[in-house]
Amino acid sequence: MLQPNERIDQLYADDIQIIQSRDVFSFSLDAVLLANFPTIPKRGLIVDLCAGNGAVGLFLSRKTSAHIIQIELQARLADMAQRSIALNKLEDQITVYPIDLKKMFEQIKPDSVDLLVCNPPYFKNLPTAVKNPNPYLAIARHEITTDLDEVVATASKALKMNGRFAMVHRPDRFLEILDCMRQHRIAPKRVRFVYPKAGKEANILLIEGIKDGKAEGFKIDPPLVTYDEAGQYLAEVRGMLYGS
Amino acid sequence: MLQPNERIDQLYADDIQIIQSRDVFSFSLDAVLLANFPTIPKRGLIVDLCAGNGAVGLFLSRKTSAHIIQIELQARLADMAQRSIALNKLEDQITVYPIDLKKMFEQIKPDSVDLLVCNPPYFKNLPTAVKNPNPYLAIARHEITTDLDEVVATASKALKMNGRFAMVHRPDRFLEILDCMRQHRIAPKRVRFVYPKAGKEANILLIEGIKDGKAEGFKIDPPLVTYDEAGQYLAEVRGMLYGS
Repeated sequence: MLQPNERIDQLYADDIQIIQSRDVFSFSLDAVLLANFPTIPKRGLIVDLCAGNGAVGLFLSRKTSAHIIQIELQARLADMAQRSIALNKLEDQITVYPIDLKKMFEQIKPDSVDLLVCNPPYFKNLPTAVKNPNPYLAIARHEITTDLDEVVATASKALKMNGRFAMVHRPDRFLEILDCMRQHRIAPKRVRFVYPKAGKEANILLIEGIKDGKAEGFKIDPPLVTYDEAGQYLAEVRGMLYGS
Repeated sequence: MLQPNERIDQLYADDIQIIQSRDVFSFSLDAVLLANFPTIPKRGLIVDLCAGNGAVGLFLSRKTSAHIIQIELQARLADMAQRSIALNKLEDQITVYPIDLKKMFEQIKPDSVDLLVCNPPYFKNLPTAVKNPNPYLAIARHEITTDLDEVVATASKALKMNGRFAMVHRPDRFLEILDCMRQHRIAPKRVRFVYPKAGKEANILLIEGIKDGKAEGFKIDPPLVTYDEAGQYLAEVRGMLYGS
């Protein structure tokens, strides 16, 4: 079941096992935060764009009966995701498509998705950007094969009216994210900022929007602080990871 | 010196005395938060729009040698502000103009201000809005005599290139504030969200922008939580109010 240099990690909070590889891809805290952020439909269809090794969909599966589709361009990562689904006996609930999101509508009808989640590449593919020499990680982190505008446009097309879009990203791109969502008919409704420690600037944002939602009623969720002064996870994050 | 139903309050942190009146206007925590938020120039010109009884300018005076101009439409409030300036012997540093901001450029040159601060009316003047029957408070709270767009347009016209704009407002109008600032050439650079208690949504935002600033580099400041579980001010707010 495992390829060379792969290992099985456990997310204790959700009782999920996940195949990881330092050489290829390991999920980060961001995936855990994203899985714990959105308003999750009890049934229907959830899509995870830029799914990586499938962490977000695996974690979400414990919170809903909805079918979950994972879209991942990189065949090696999609294969890891597929094997993790088998490992957790979730073949009936989760489907992986090892395809470019540009081809997603060959598999998924427009206006059919209840919730679309995405942990996209965060960094612009500027000529000056220093990219990871590992191509798996470079594609996951930099906007090489897709970018924010395409992710949000694809999400909007996939979502039902009043369907929800939830994304994890970086605060320095917050204004661009808001513009992009509104341009593609997704009304930003709720944002949560994540701070590495008390007294520090936010380093992660979680944002939720509603397709064709009203412009009014934007909310700022309670702050989430990751670590205490000693570098230990604070209670809320510990709960997401370990269940207590 | 005091009119009927007026009293003198003390802001201990900044050693400022301020004339207040429950019937007319008393400064709120929002004014204290605003005075403690912006990047304050050491000299030059600061303008406080919608100055009320002058609290923000009085508090700022302790942090800068800049000249401070307060613009307040309501003559009764401007008169209180003027008497507070005398009470604190700040006549050389602070000037009050009891005028509508629509007439501000009869007194202040465009492109001349280093920092413009504003604690504007927060609530839209909708036909359905329940307004305070006290006209002083209604004008201070609802967009009756001015609105967000006019405040930001006026600020932008007043500011030097690279001058700073700082405002306190409500999170539910955050998207509109960002749009309005950018429409009037003020690049949003930094926002701080204020939460009433741990685990609650933000109820106040502080935002700073730079006239003709770069679009990149937006930052989310550390969260500020006002009260502990027992309803007592937490340390940072206590420091702003009492100096310890």
